Amino acid sequence: MNAFTSTRVAMAQDVKRVSDSTVGRLSIYLRLLTELQTEGVATLSSGELAARCGTTAAQVRKDLSSFGTFGKRGLGYSVAELVAVLRGILGLERRWRVALIGAGRIGVALLGYQDFRDQGFYIDAVFDKDPQKVGLSGHGVVVQGDEEMERVLAASEIDIAIVAVPAESAQSVVDRVVGAGVRGILNFAPTKLNVPAGVALKNVNMAVELEALSYALANSGRRSRRVVPARG
Amino acid sequence: MNAFTSTRVAMAQDVKRVSDSTVGRLSIYLRLLTELQTEGVATLSSGELAARCGTTAAQVRKDLSSFGTFGKRGLGYSVAELVAVLRGILGLERRWRVALIGAGRIGVALLGYQDFRDQGFYIDAVFDKDPQKVGLSGHGVVVQGDEEMERVLAASEIDIAIVAVPAESAQSVVDRVVGAGVRGILNFAPTKLNVPAGVALKNVNMAVELEALSYALANSGRRSRRVVPARG
Repeated sequence: MNAFTSTRVAMAQDVKRVSDSTVGRLSIYLRLLTELQTEGVATLSSGELAARCGTTAAQVRKDLSSFGTFGKRGLGYSVAELVAVLRGILGLERRWRVALIGAGRIGVALLGYQDFRDQGFYIDAVFDKDPQKVGLSGHGVVVQGDEEMERVLAASEIDIAIVAVPAESAQSVVDRVVGAGVRGILNFAPTKLNVPAGVALKNVNMAVELEALSYALANSGRRSRRVVPARG
Repeated sequence: MNAFTSTRVAMAQDVKRVSDSTVGRLSIYLRLLTELQTEGVATLSSGELAARCGTTAAQVRKDLSSFGTFGKRGLGYSVAELVAVLRGILGLERRWRVALIGAGRIGVALLGYQDFRDQGFYIDAVFDKDPQKVGLSGHGVVVQGDEEMERVLAASEIDIAIVAVPAESAQSVVDRVVGAGVRGILNFAPTKLNVPAGVALKNVNMAVELEALSYALANSGRRSRRVVPARG
């Protein structure tokens, strides 16, 4: 698990814990299966699914067996059935109400990100503290003032907040959002955030991903010498 | 390690392998230390650093010890020194040449993302296959036609390509980029990509992160009942 994509969730005790990496693979299986479904593929084996996802057939079977028994020996999985099951497991059989906090460049790009809507995530509210942005609209949503946030979040029964504010404002925004009853946060601010138990937090930190690339390139021996710390 | 943020890199044999999650933590340490440096903090202990990063002092010491011996017992780490060392390890002491492939909404947002430049990642070239976009400029870079890609990537000695094209075009774009000598790829297309050994690939898949949230919320017992697969 990457430190910067960690999820902190206190689950209800009757729910079995599944690792972040398993959930991530389920998402990837679902994406591939949905593609196959549109291509008219009806069944496939765990080995075929694994090969397309860069994992092993044993891993696929293990991941899916956590949620029940799927597929028939020799016949493979029904694509349509597995899509439905995975959508159910991932909580995609419902419409999620999402609020976007911060209508800057990243925020506006996210507002127009069709993939979110395709998966059932609808941005129903947008907030910004810049008075110049309040009242602007895009993709059917009007930017509301920061001071409206708590009231609207509660009234609209927002499930998930996307935090796209500067790093220095992010924790206070998250505290307010959580205080208003939101239980899922997708953070784009390049900072570590704290949330109480029972709130799920995922971070998308593009700068960290880029640094992982520069690390790999700087240490690949292709363009640079090995980096040796200056002191022993 | 999340399946969707995996890095595949064949490192030179003389370089010790460090896990993705370690590299991710180093980025986070660096970010916090840089903040502390601007606040005038001169030294801190592994325990203080750990507490701010949501990890343990033992983990911090282990992560840093992979690269040499830092800090003095009882005195802690010098913030300035550790910043310099981490920047060196992560390959941030140089300017990285980045090309953006795809000038859609996500691409344009990334073009304006100041954090990238602050860390030494400069978008020096932008490509799009839409003739309407070719010739447009933003943040000092002019969008070039898709057909110019190989020539410009090689001539400009681009290190890293940010792939922000639709999923169905992503693999062919990556093949071309890799063919032109680029050895680091940050992929925003919601699909699995294959790269040859020696090329580092990181994926930013926001839809997958959102699905991890919906999974957590759907299984938290707060708003929904437990999802049970339809068949046993």
